[in-house]
Amino acid sequence: MNDTFLRACRGEEVEYTPVWLMRQAGRYLPEYQTVRSNIDFLTLCKNPKLAAEVTLQPVDILGVDAAILFSDILIPLEAMGMRLEFSDKEGPVLSEPIRSKTSVEKLIIPDVEDDLPFIFDTIRILRKELENKVPLIGFSGAPFTLATYMIEGGTSKNFLHTKKMMFQNSPVFHYLMEKLTDMLISYLSFQIKAGAQAVQVFDSWAGILAPVDYKKFAFPYVKKVISEIKKERVPVIYFVNNCAGILKEVKNSGADVIGVDWRVDIADAIKKLGKKITIQGNLDPCALFLPKEKLEERVKDILWKGETAKSHIFNLGHGVLPQTPVENVIAMVEAVHTYGRRR
Amino acid sequence: MNDTFLRACRGEEVEYTPVWLMRQAGRYLPEYQTVRSNIDFLTLCKNPKLAAEVTLQPVDILGVDAAILFSDILIPLEAMGMRLEFSDKEGPVLSEPIRSKTSVEKLIIPDVEDDLPFIFDTIRILRKELENKVPLIGFSGAPFTLATYMIEGGTSKNFLHTKKMMFQNSPVFHYLMEKLTDMLISYLSFQIKAGAQAVQVFDSWAGILAPVDYKKFAFPYVKKVISEIKKERVPVIYFVNNCAGILKEVKNSGADVIGVDWRVDIADAIKKLGKKITIQGNLDPCALFLPKEKLEERVKDILWKGETAKSHIFNLGHGVLPQTPVENVIAMVEAVHTYGRRR
Repeated sequence: MNDTFLRACRGEEVEYTPVWLMRQAGRYLPEYQTVRSNIDFLTLCKNPKLAAEVTLQPVDILGVDAAILFSDILIPLEAMGMRLEFSDKEGPVLSEPIRSKTSVEKLIIPDVEDDLPFIFDTIRILRKELENKVPLIGFSGAPFTLATYMIEGGTSKNFLHTKKMMFQNSPVFHYLMEKLTDMLISYLSFQIKAGAQAVQVFDSWAGILAPVDYKKFAFPYVKKVISEIKKERVPVIYFVNNCAGILKEVKNSGADVIGVDWRVDIADAIKKLGKKITIQGNLDPCALFLPKEKLEERVKDILWKGETAKSHIFNLGHGVLPQTPVENVIAMVEAVHTYGRRR
Repeated sequence: MNDTFLRACRGEEVEYTPVWLMRQAGRYLPEYQTVRSNIDFLTLCKNPKLAAEVTLQPVDILGVDAAILFSDILIPLEAMGMRLEFSDKEGPVLSEPIRSKTSVEKLIIPDVEDDLPFIFDTIRILRKELENKVPLIGFSGAPFTLATYMIEGGTSKNFLHTKKMMFQNSPVFHYLMEKLTDMLISYLSFQIKAGAQAVQVFDSWAGILAPVDYKKFAFPYVKKVISEIKKERVPVIYFVNNCAGILKEVKNSGADVIGVDWRVDIADAIKKLGKKITIQGNLDPCALFLPKEKLEERVKDILWKGETAKSHIFNLGHGVLPQTPVENVIAMVEAVHTYGRRR
């Protein structure tokens, strides 16, 4: 098996810099579009055979060093009792947002095996199909990021409902975060038991907080999730979007790997995170629209800076955009494999 | 006159920490709503008497140490030949976005005196009415921020059109930035000649760029604007939204004051910016929804950290939100005046 990705997570010797991409299975791939033309997004996530199929597409097409389960961070919220819909225009919609103690009380801590069987089945199919290829990454949202969707009812511009709950009704906010933390520990453990060989925790919205609020309202919960999951003895990646202002805290998350977005110089991020953590990232997804020679220069610059870390896993700083030309993604993966040094 | 704000800009001795708020004239004030009930936003911006009236409202109501011209960063784009509309839901709409060399060529460098007379008139009225009160701040967008609106046609999620032009059509992008730089130099000089006693350059979208791109595509132009405007001998404030990842560059902008958003610890920002620059900021606008005691704690924390800078002007990290309770804004201003130390 190509275990370069797992070795880099653990900071062990590798033959080259491994690479995968957030949203590597997705709309920019014609093969994905074909599957999606007959099925809506949420149904696809819950269909093990098709979810496994789209998970595998980029492994073959791009030659990346890891597969990541095709799913959505909001999937377990349905099992908690929330109504979830995806609209192509607005993105996710949770039609009954959490705004009171009563609504937090009503949230169920799901029995993951009974309530999310399709996750288990998809992972089992994938481990079988991936044999002798690349490792499989499981994932979840971080407690704070999931809380924002639950409180706002979807995405948001200012996250005012979330911050109002934090500021005006702290006990209810903390109660929600505790429930999410418990759910995520069992959800990620379950993915690992099903066969996930590493997990990534996505904190897509941590970067909207002032550092003082991140420290108080978000960090303790994700830290607890990470420390519990580490008992399962697979690498844990913590991806923090818009991380530049909170790296001092993020450093102490306990994760083996920290994923950083593109709005920070990866060399600065490595300096702040120190020598004990593998870094993952951080090409601007829009850089995939550069002409190939320029794209190659960008890749080299990040690879060169990545050498100052304990280890480096190449990735984008956020998900692949739907409009991205596939040939440029392939060129990016090739450039990483060509210029990423052995360590 | 209360010139505390101007003295802090210059790093001179002050009796207390001055404070003003971005969007201090705006929808959260019932007095503003009353004016707006009879006039649309764009017409209000172009009506010197009413624009002056809403500019003055927060000076009296809040007791802030500076007034800022009521206008919008997109106003001069109309004078460049673009069609501008504001919808209450979608925000600004530029219905014919700039996507080609031809469309950049067509842009006019306006004769500010002839094309934007209402700006001159509003400033003149304000200087007269403000006499013996507080200084008047003029403002503009930074070249990059204006370019994003012009290229996207409004706000954007991923700024893909902007980055595609930067990456695939650099000469056209640089051509646009040159035209914007020329326009802004004459626009800000004009505001100063009309009576503005300081100017703030808003780089609301600089923070969407990777540091390497900010350095190449945005920074040289705003630096040129600042260095030209400094010849007019009034303080220049450069506000950079989502600044945490690019402070190393921002440090060299030449501005007297750097305004920072809330997603960075102001103590960290000061460390990066050094001892030659006055810092402005950086309370999370959502912190104005905190109960008053907690709000006061936040204010004190920022004031305390602000003491490590050359000088500190208290402000929010972004504009006041429309839903903000006025009494909390007043409490914030009082807290700054009570706890901000003499230097």
